[in-house]
Amino acid sequence: MATGIQFTLSARDGAARTGVIHTPRGEIRTPAFMPVGTAATVKAMLPESVRATGADILLGNTYHLMLRPGAERVAALGGLHRFMNWDRPILTDSGGFQVMSLGPLRKLTEEGVRFASHLDGSKHMLTPERSMEIQALLGSDIAMCFDECPALPATEAEVAKSMQLSMRWAQRSRDAFGDRPGHALFGICQGGVTRDLREQSAKALIDIGFDGYAVGGLAVGEGQEAMFGVLDYAPGMLPEDKPRYLMGVGKPDDIVGAVSRGIDMMDCVLPSRSGRTGQAWTARGQVNLRNARHKDDPRPLEEGCGCPACRSYSRAYLHHVVKADEIIGSMLLTWHNLHYYQVLMEGLRNAIKSGRLAEFVYGFHATRAVGDLELR
Amino acid sequence: MATGIQFTLSARDGAARTGVIHTPRGEIRTPAFMPVGTAATVKAMLPESVRATGADILLGNTYHLMLRPGAERVAALGGLHRFMNWDRPILTDSGGFQVMSLGPLRKLTEEGVRFASHLDGSKHMLTPERSMEIQALLGSDIAMCFDECPALPATEAEVAKSMQLSMRWAQRSRDAFGDRPGHALFGICQGGVTRDLREQSAKALIDIGFDGYAVGGLAVGEGQEAMFGVLDYAPGMLPEDKPRYLMGVGKPDDIVGAVSRGIDMMDCVLPSRSGRTGQAWTARGQVNLRNARHKDDPRPLEEGCGCPACRSYSRAYLHHVVKADEIIGSMLLTWHNLHYYQVLMEGLRNAIKSGRLAEFVYGFHATRAVGDLELR
Repeated sequence: MATGIQFTLSARDGAARTGVIHTPRGEIRTPAFMPVGTAATVKAMLPESVRATGADILLGNTYHLMLRPGAERVAALGGLHRFMNWDRPILTDSGGFQVMSLGPLRKLTEEGVRFASHLDGSKHMLTPERSMEIQALLGSDIAMCFDECPALPATEAEVAKSMQLSMRWAQRSRDAFGDRPGHALFGICQGGVTRDLREQSAKALIDIGFDGYAVGGLAVGEGQEAMFGVLDYAPGMLPEDKPRYLMGVGKPDDIVGAVSRGIDMMDCVLPSRSGRTGQAWTARGQVNLRNARHKDDPRPLEEGCGCPACRSYSRAYLHHVVKADEIIGSMLLTWHNLHYYQVLMEGLRNAIKSGRLAEFVYGFHATRAVGDLELR
Repeated sequence: MATGIQFTLSARDGAARTGVIHTPRGEIRTPAFMPVGTAATVKAMLPESVRATGADILLGNTYHLMLRPGAERVAALGGLHRFMNWDRPILTDSGGFQVMSLGPLRKLTEEGVRFASHLDGSKHMLTPERSMEIQALLGSDIAMCFDECPALPATEAEVAKSMQLSMRWAQRSRDAFGDRPGHALFGICQGGVTRDLREQSAKALIDIGFDGYAVGGLAVGEGQEAMFGVLDYAPGMLPEDKPRYLMGVGKPDDIVGAVSRGIDMMDCVLPSRSGRTGQAWTARGQVNLRNARHKDDPRPLEEGCGCPACRSYSRAYLHHVVKADEIIGSMLLTWHNLHYYQVLMEGLRNAIKSGRLAEFVYGFHATRAVGDLELR
């Protein structure tokens, strides 16, 4: 098993690591942030622009793509890479988290999850086997096990029961995925905020054997402190020589904290979603371009930033197009946010390489604190 | 007067002409199509992408920009070119047509037009003098006279009265514009579909003297046949050595007909607006990407087209992102449409240069007729 892709670590600094995941479609520099291309597009961006921000890999959503345009259709059109014009690596989630979020629209059994589409109410069934089939039809480079993640709040017994189901599904996912050279399957560690359950889950996954391991069930409302509490030990339960992926994270300070604790990959809709609501992420913190204080400001959003929004436009212009609901506002702010996230990842990688992560993290927080006072 | 810019004609074919308008901000190849950047953005496009389609000049709207972000603000920020990151020529309309469209929200007097903003109901006054001031504050390269255009249907007496008012306003516009080297002021010929009135209007404008002359009051619902009827004689009433601009036109076949009748410049929101509703313009006619027949179609929108939408995506993808209301659908289809319009203008310019316009026009209509049968 676990022969899909290679992962080479080049440096460590404390629990943090930096390295490269090698895939036939290109290298993924870790720690890596993966922009989310839910419906075969990173919203408001052309794929060449996403690449220009420094992204090595995108995330695609099985749930959305199976409903529209449909996995079989994407396969007939040459796969997701060709469909969406992105020839570098793609990771697909399993659909498990998103069907879980449907609440009363879904029904959970040992076999899988039956649910109704949010688009047209049509009935569908996702199982580990069907999820693997869909992800293969999409042609993703890294597939995720189909798992279950209990809605919070949940008792420890509920979390344990859910984790055990996810581990049975992990085995079924592994069996269904089969042997696909050049393609990877990641397991997902569950167990909520209970260390024993995380340990059991990690052991079960390692017994099965995967190309990488995700820490699942976090960033679902437990708060940063509880999340960091789990990340203080969970990455260490996973194989040292495989990538560790924290799903659905997060804000820049979440990312810095997660990388410091040994996480190699992350994804989040936040930078792109924020960009569509006039919110910008900068080294000095979050900037709300809707705020009237920007309307006469000739300065760039972020001094020294190399993205098109900062290179060629004033805060006054960005304020204007955000207020006027012009599409270029979403385009420019999404670009800036994705650019900032990639600059942050590059900074983290370089800091780990040079053994100066603590200094980097100090500077990260200090700059934000100054920004809080001066600029926001 | 009329010393703002130079216009050199290089070839004629029948009534059609091709040449170059020289401005300090760059050359405008004529016949020229000007994309519309209403609120300091060509919707869903970055300005460098607009330029990449081949556009030499944009149009900006005085009415929208005076209300938001405000002409004085744009001036304080360095002018419209810098504000919107477009360093090539910009033509601004006078605001006259758009305040006319406000209907009951506006009140017309000899002095000008008092109106309420569609954004917040605030009261404003536009006069020839204020329109010239705003266009100078924006820093546009080509300003338009402030004029009045009667709503259809209108009696000949109403059209005559309105035209005479516009001619008095043309003189006031000329006086207020003053002498601004490198900046041009265009007069606007009115008179509806009545030849005598057009003649009177043209003579009045020529007496005043302008850098260019627009044929106004068309494309307001009179239909293509009536419009072409006026264009059969109106351009010939205007000075041979000055650019002739047909405002607010149009569909590709309107453009071909107008150029054939001696028009040098046009603008229209159609290619960009269509792009945001899933409509594409091609040499073979209009294509509605919302139509389900595209959902499995691996072919490009238009074979041989060099725009990003056609180079890198299938009709199936464009259908998917249009149906899913993804911003990239607006981005790609707007780009395609603006690209197609510029390819059409280039074709017209080359045909006129080589004395083969009739052949070009025949091919244009024949290709569309075949497209009607085969592709739509």
